[in-house]
Amino acid sequence: MNKVPVLEIFGPTVQGEGMTIGQKTMFIRTAGCDYQCSWCDSAFTWNGTEKQNINWMTAEEIWNTLYELGGDTFSHITISGGNPALLPSLGPVVDFLKEKGMTLALETQGSKWQSWLPLIDEVTLSPKPPSSGMDTDFTILENIIDHLKNHPKVCLKIVIFDEKDLAYAEIVHQRFPQLPLYLQVGNSWLEADDESLLQYLLKRYEWLIDQVMKSTVFKNVKVLPQLHAYVWGNKRGV
Amino acid sequence: MNKVPVLEIFGPTVQGEGMTIGQKTMFIRTAGCDYQCSWCDSAFTWNGTEKQNINWMTAEEIWNTLYELGGDTFSHITISGGNPALLPSLGPVVDFLKEKGMTLALETQGSKWQSWLPLIDEVTLSPKPPSSGMDTDFTILENIIDHLKNHPKVCLKIVIFDEKDLAYAEIVHQRFPQLPLYLQVGNSWLEADDESLLQYLLKRYEWLIDQVMKSTVFKNVKVLPQLHAYVWGNKRGV
Ligand code: SF4
Ligand code: SF4
Repeated sequence: MNKVPVLEIFGPTVQGEGMTIGQKTMFIRTAGCDYQCSWCDSAFTWNGTEKQNINWMTAEEIWNTLYELGGDTFSHITISGGNPALLPSLGPVVDFLKEKGMTLALETQGSKWQSWLPLIDEVTLSPKPPSSGMDTDFTILENIIDHLKNHPKVCLKIVIFDEKDLAYAEIVHQRFPQLPLYLQVGNSWLEADDESLLQYLLKRYEWLIDQVMKSTVFKNVKVLPQLHAYVWGNKRGV
Repeated sequence: MNKVPVLEIFGPTVQGEGMTIGQKTMFIRTAGCDYQCSWCDSAFTWNGTEKQNINWMTAEEIWNTLYELGGDTFSHITISGGNPALLPSLGPVVDFLKEKGMTLALETQGSKWQSWLPLIDEVTLSPKPPSSGMDTDFTILENIIDHLKNHPKVCLKIVIFDEKDLAYAEIVHQRFPQLPLYLQVGNSWLEADDESLLQYLLKRYEWLIDQVMKSTVFKNVKVLPQLHAYVWGNKRGV
């Protein structure tokens, strides 16, 4: 039986970032990642701390859980990780959810191709900048982007912590100018209380805006915060 | 000589709301509106208080001002009002800016058609809910939407202050289910200091999220705040 390692299913809630910011959606969070970003905000999906919570689920079990939570209030689902694109077994889940009439969004760093990726309605590729400690394999990323070239909704999203990350984002933008680019404020303060976090994030957002506004490379880009951190702080599962 | 009444040109800055939230863009704000919404946050465009600041400008003058402000840092321009769709004279401006390679966004309440509307890359139609004190002419709105039916980027945006506004948004959504719908938190506190405003807006945003999450009518919609109010409070021209 085809099963997928799932760590969290929650919603309906609002997507707080990126291409579908503000979207009413359900979340499915899969376990496992081929990266270990220094600032990963979902390290529990891959560092073993929640191994015992991984639920191996069939497409139907996933659908039933979604429906129990959301009833008749949703038609949009976001698949997140970890890196969901590690999982060939997501294919049947994607098929199942599409048959139910759902719109699907997915985020991956772009380190693995899966044949089911073109069936995702909204694909966010989020290559990781230097501050993550990870290296981008541009051959693989380029290959994925090439495979998705007729897809109407693919975008790039890069989290920015510092100047080096911005320089990396410039390179990515110049390499793939055809793709909409979202620059997102990094949240490196995962322990903050809500009030201080909000002030800190707004300062970082202003900094990023200032950098991008004067740039002649970033002409037609989007600069966004993580809205959910404004509303819910660092809380999980909302 | 074809001229347009302009009240403000500023940027580059970030679009704080709606379909292009986060977008790096220049703003052109035209004078004049056929509505008088009770909570209009740009009443100075139509209530006479800044009549002396209206600048009648040609397309080339507008472009020169944009270029003086933004130099080589931008390729996206937002035309806002007032209601810019009152102005047939915007046609030559739209042509001029498109020839310069610009991507154009525009917002209008959808009370007037102009032949240049299909040339706008990103059209936001924002019919006004009951709290505005205005009535929607659905025949005109439907006609505009029909004329734009092959346009790839048209959306509806409705500002929500209360339950009646939500009920209105449900009707609009059911009437035009094919159009992406953005529900936006209304800011009725234009006199607030920045700190209190932020807390107030976050509360209102949470309220709106709660309402939409339990709705079976709003399944696939986007719920957004006005980001610029978070960052810049009620300041103008940023
Ligand atoms: S790719 Fe994403 S999930 Fe994986 S380690 Fe990096 S931030 Fe975390
Ligand atoms: S339509 Fe827009 S500009 Fe005109 S009065 Fe209403 S809010 Fe103000």
